[in-house]
Amino acid sequence: MLFLNKYSIQKMDQGLIQTAVEKAYQSVLSQNYNMPDRMHVIDHENTLLLMPCFSENFFATKLVSVFPKAREHGQPAVNGVMVLSDNVSGQPLAIMDGAAITAQRTGAVGGSAVKRLTAESIETAGILGAGVQGLSQARYLLFNRKIKTLYIYDLNPEAVMGMINTLKQEFSSLEYVAAETPDQLLADSRVIIAATTSKSPLFEASPDNILGKTFISIGSFRPDMQEFPNIVIKNADDIFVDTLFAIKESGDIATPLKDHVIAKDRIKEFAGLLRENTIFENRTVFFKSVGMALFDLTTAAAVYQQALENNIGQRLDF
Amino acid sequence: MLFLNKYSIQKMDQGLIQTAVEKAYQSVLSQNYNMPDRMHVIDHENTLLLMPCFSENFFATKLVSVFPKAREHGQPAVNGVMVLSDNVSGQPLAIMDGAAITAQRTGAVGGSAVKRLTAESIETAGILGAGVQGLSQARYLLFNRKIKTLYIYDLNPEAVMGMINTLKQEFSSLEYVAAETPDQLLADSRVIIAATTSKSPLFEASPDNILGKTFISIGSFRPDMQEFPNIVIKNADDIFVDTLFAIKESGDIATPLKDHVIAKDRIKEFAGLLRENTIFENRTVFFKSVGMALFDLTTAAAVYQQALENNIGQRLDF
Repeated sequence: MLFLNKYSIQKMDQGLIQTAVEKAYQSVLSQNYNMPDRMHVIDHENTLLLMPCFSENFFATKLVSVFPKAREHGQPAVNGVMVLSDNVSGQPLAIMDGAAITAQRTGAVGGSAVKRLTAESIETAGILGAGVQGLSQARYLLFNRKIKTLYIYDLNPEAVMGMINTLKQEFSSLEYVAAETPDQLLADSRVIIAATTSKSPLFEASPDNILGKTFISIGSFRPDMQEFPNIVIKNADDIFVDTLFAIKESGDIATPLKDHVIAKDRIKEFAGLLRENTIFENRTVFFKSVGMALFDLTTAAAVYQQALENNIGQRLDF
Repeated sequence: MLFLNKYSIQKMDQGLIQTAVEKAYQSVLSQNYNMPDRMHVIDHENTLLLMPCFSENFFATKLVSVFPKAREHGQPAVNGVMVLSDNVSGQPLAIMDGAAITAQRTGAVGGSAVKRLTAESIETAGILGAGVQGLSQARYLLFNRKIKTLYIYDLNPEAVMGMINTLKQEFSSLEYVAAETPDQLLADSRVIIAATTSKSPLFEASPDNILGKTFISIGSFRPDMQEFPNIVIKNADDIFVDTLFAIKESGDIATPLKDHVIAKDRIKEFAGLLRENTIFENRTVFFKSVGMALFDLTTAAAVYQQALENNIGQRLDF
């Protein structure tokens, strides 16, 4: 059995991770997986999520704990452990840092959306939210597009500076701009990716500032959260979700539906794009991701195979 | 973070494990725990069980996979991974071999029953089933009572010889008898412990062969399984279960209830004994265990603390 910590997972090849995420979408198309509803356990103010999933060759369970008060003790609020097993023998194959798997797969979900929903020629982009997920979104954005100017906004300007410094080490040939407001970022970006925990839309906008752009919402995983104002989805030519659960789970879809801004039949599964070769030039596109255990499974499997090939990780004598 | 494999868990101090199991019963009395219903995932012929539990200081999730066909490939059908975390910071503390934790805690549940439900003076005992759980039952039986003659029965005589050889290395000052039939074992034993997957009672008996003895059923974890014939529970002065879920889950309780052999109000929670100092001399006693995640949690916590104190296990750079 293998143990893979966050440092080894962070160093994994982005192309292979993004391919793994697209493999998950392929499984959605072929219905070649078994993903039961995730289990929520509430204990006082804390939450434990149990996310099992089975594919043809592997099964995996991600355990994610959310302890809001841990931050007061200088610990991360979110922890995760991923257990990957062989779906033929039943044997456990690897234990992984679940938070690092989440960051990689969420980044790659955004990356796949950038790849398929933006024009290859785009040169400006904006990231709202400079946390772990924002960083991962930026890494996969820059992996997919030759961005010349990247705007980053966060309520905490220090977090923006930290993220810029981290990104510069890996991607040095572009200009980084710490945006003063979300509006500045919106005005100058062709693709806008939000990875925040905001409960109300991050900006107000007129159609002029929206048309022809791609909007990717990664945060808002509950109905009481919303990152983009209704006017964005209202003006979108195309609306995609990574999974139809997003309709119930995210305020970025649930709220405009409730407000009768859009009709439900306009919402399409992103996986369908894998069957087509649509080119999104000069279209206004809205993509909402809430994630699913199937992404974790295919990502963990890709990480495991890469670790084996490159002799990465700590061997455990099970 | 610490990794503890089966060898390190098997070597743990039995007294500390048994104390941990009794701590779980104390938590039942004080209702000082949070144990949601376990989650079952069925995938073709395979099953994954997810068993989370929270106590004051720790939370733990045991993942158990049952792959019946794995045996055909020379692999164990049951695999388990235990994740132990800190219930204040949310941090994962240890990954353990879940099957080894199960064996230890199940042995200690039997051991605690032997300690509280048999006379100290008993010198004869019988174990039905020479698998992993039977071995663990024997170890905890011999830890609690000075047995002079131990009878062991299994459908597979080789398994009996293997178990005797294993036990002799740890407990050498007693006579081991490979019983030819369950009846021989029953006739000569003061305590009878069954750890089988039998779907029908392992023997027929007359009241003469039952009275004054203690019967401990560890197997039968489904309503279609039964280890002891109805006549045993019918003649029992006391009927205990480790958890009231046993009434639904085990044929050893469900079947006699359905057959109107006993009334439901005669079934008592074992935990209640921790408040009393009942001495079970010359009584006929029936104890049924189906296990619960709370036992796994307190056992894993005790294993973790012992591992830290004795520098056991593999350190993981989380």
